[in-house]
Amino acid sequence: MEYQEILYEIEDRILTITLNRPDKMNAFTVRMFNELMDAFDQADADDSVRAVIVTGAGRAFCAGADLSMGAATWDGDDSTFDFDISKGDTGGRLTRRIFDCTKPVIAAINGSAVGVGLTMTLAMDMRLVSNKAKLGFVFAARGIIPEACSSWFLPRLVGISQALEWVYSARIFNGEEALRAGLVRSVHEPEEVYVEARKLALEIAVNTSAVSVALARQMMWKMLGADHPVEAHKLDTRGIFALGASADAKEGIESFLEKRTPNFTDKVTKNMPDFYPWWKGRDYE
Amino acid sequence: MEYQEILYEIEDRILTITLNRPDKMNAFTVRMFNELMDAFDQADADDSVRAVIVTGAGRAFCAGADLSMGAATWDGDDSTFDFDISKGDTGGRLTRRIFDCTKPVIAAINGSAVGVGLTMTLAMDMRLVSNKAKLGFVFAARGIIPEACSSWFLPRLVGISQALEWVYSARIFNGEEALRAGLVRSVHEPEEVYVEARKLALEIAVNTSAVSVALARQMMWKMLGADHPVEAHKLDTRGIFALGASADAKEGIESFLEKRTPNFTDKVTKNMPDFYPWWKGRDYE
Amino acid sequence: MEYQEILYEIEDRILTITLNRPDKMNAFTVRMFNELMDAFDQADADDSVRAVIVTGAGRAFCAGADLSMGAATWDGDDSTFDFDISKGDTGGRLTRRIFDCTKPVIAAINGSAVGVGLTMTLAMDMRLVSNKAKLGFVFAARGIIPEACSSWFLPRLVGISQALEWVYSARIFNGEEALRAGLVRSVHEPEEVYVEARKLALEIAVNTSAVSVALARQMMWKMLGADHPVEAHKLDTRGIFALGASADAKEGIESFLEKRTPNFTDKVTKNMPDFYPWWKGRDYE
Repeated sequence: MEYQEILYEIEDRILTITLNRPDKMNAFTVRMFNELMDAFDQADADDSVRAVIVTGAGRAFCAGADLSMGAATWDGDDSTFDFDISKGDTGGRLTRRIFDCTKPVIAAINGSAVGVGLTMTLAMDMRLVSNKAKLGFVFAARGIIPEACSSWFLPRLVGISQALEWVYSARIFNGEEALRAGLVRSVHEPEEVYVEARKLALEIAVNTSAVSVALARQMMWKMLGADHPVEAHKLDTRGIFALGASADAKEGIESFLEKRTPNFTDKVTKNMPDFYPWWKGRDYE
Repeated sequence: MEYQEILYEIEDRILTITLNRPDKMNAFTVRMFNELMDAFDQADADDSVRAVIVTGAGRAFCAGADLSMGAATWDGDDSTFDFDISKGDTGGRLTRRIFDCTKPVIAAINGSAVGVGLTMTLAMDMRLVSNKAKLGFVFAARGIIPEACSSWFLPRLVGISQALEWVYSARIFNGEEALRAGLVRSVHEPEEVYVEARKLALEIAVNTSAVSVALARQMMWKMLGADHPVEAHKLDTRGIFALGASADAKEGIESFLEKRTPNFTDKVTKNMPDFYPWWKGRDYE
Repeated sequence: MEYQEILYEIEDRILTITLNRPDKMNAFTVRMFNELMDAFDQADADDSVRAVIVTGAGRAFCAGADLSMGAATWDGDDSTFDFDISKGDTGGRLTRRIFDCTKPVIAAINGSAVGVGLTMTLAMDMRLVSNKAKLGFVFAARGIIPEACSSWFLPRLVGISQALEWVYSARIFNGEEALRAGLVRSVHEPEEVYVEARKLALEIAVNTSAVSVALARQMMWKMLGADHPVEAHKLDTRGIFALGASADAKEGIESFLEKRTPNFTDKVTKNMPDFYPWWKGRDYE
């Protein structure tokens, strides 16, 4: 797929996906959605990618859905929305795709992020934000509701009270308020956001097993919805015994006992354990 | 229903419910319970109500269950408790009623709140508290256990460790401790608690769609218990398409593009989408 | 059972379990696992125990799994691992045992805790830590994944973003970082960790009903996985009516009205309500 509204660049094992409509504040379109879905498929299929950073071109991160069609934006006309409605709204399809990703995903929110521009980041693992960014869950001021599965993600990230206050008020808030609430990991000068995200990605992408990271990512996110720790026990027992027999585990212990840097060789495309993916029947209906 | 133990006052689209037994520190009775249940029914049925504040008359918020019957308090005798035991304890019936409310609910904890006086607020969206208030989950010091569904709400608000420490110790704590733990949004001088709650309610009640707020409230609270984001996706897709076709969404986009204040007209009593309420079979058995 | 790798000491109604292989930094073995399982059974069966502190002998808390077998550590050979694999990995069996405990459990992390040395504490109610301790979820640097049900516990304690950052990076972090993230309750000089844990245990173990505490512990932890507050309502209604008829509730109200210290007499071994334990079918398969 040829990308027109995003950039896809790999350097030092880090994939950077850049929302790239800078003259439109990177407003979200169906084309951008389709390109992002494809980009995450590519990221999962490429063992040279150890982590993903999502950022925006120019001053904004993403101004939300492109509203240039005015009131026709939400009318669900297939000639307007070039996507299969039976699979659900685009925002939720994107966050669920990120939810299932095997690589760490970092949001480098270089500038303002509102509406889907902010909710799309909720399924990413960590968020870093510019001290100049304007942030907002503005849906109730537009007569609609938060999407992209944000009713599932947001209260788990910042607590139900803070989530409701932002959603009820549709208030624009800044990075410091986001930091106090735990929505973002850290706040930076605009030009430092991507630099810091890259440092974090490199820390994650070095000296750890790609298979361990991929399996741990899925265990942590998926168990956030489990009703009892025994579900985690079933998974981690299978994980310990499957990975325990792997080349990476052998290298992990040997390098530890020899006090040297490990050289892991197992690959996400080939060496995930048999029971992965274990989730079934959680499709959109 | 004529209220004897609460006050019910609407001003500027904000309903204030005042626990009104100031000579008894607003201790909770079955009559007060029945009046509160009725008041929330009225709040949902009245489109002129955009937000609800719950506060207490006099110096206390609520001293907990009225223990003037002594050891007979918990004996479940229907002549003592004038309520249908088959529907469950009053505390849980009240918090579940608030959980299903369509309007934002703010607790203005103007003074001390212990036992059910504190647990009743856990299903409210935000809590503001007096710096003079004494707070406590005192149940274990009385030989009973926390009620009002607080085993579901409290760990989700403050984390399991803090929840257990307060419940095990039955300790009396103050607003600053509550603030550090995230139980309350802010701490104020006693006379400022209601004033600040009102400011917050007005921020919520102005310039946003009542239908958007009602649907978002139910989505956020209900999805806090969902096991997978796809459940949110099913809801938000239906919500986006239903509300997207609404007068409020049209006004939302037009006012945004015209850079003017929106004038929303859709009503909770008439314009909630067809799939609301979507929860079924979650009654007390 | 005679303990060789732990100490089991009761004083002032507080049981202290000490991981006791100080020359091995208290590294976790199958024998230590079996002794810990037995110790928690003893703690539940002994009404003189009101709270449990888990700590380590010497400078470390627990250095993680004993890796002295090298790459054979994870091979699941029954001659190496003397436990029934059909019941799941030892880490998860231990945290699930603690999850079901009827007494408050406090981790006094007197020194470094990595791997299972840290994940075993996640099912404990509160954690206090030394300012000299090195902490780490180091699994991905060993080619394996976090165990002990930590994919269920850790995101609930510190949020998904912080959990993933620690797990991806396999970073060693200190007590201050753990405190900022909410993983631990407080940070102390090494020699003060146990002293402070003991103060907290005594606050918990005095003037509250043992039956109230046991039931509340199970309600809070178990409801953390429930999908709707009505599940808590079913439990707390039964709890209020069962305990409301108890000797402890009578003493609780009478002592309160007489403004004296209560003298509770009900026992966990005899007076838990009929519906306890209410969880079924949540075994390892």
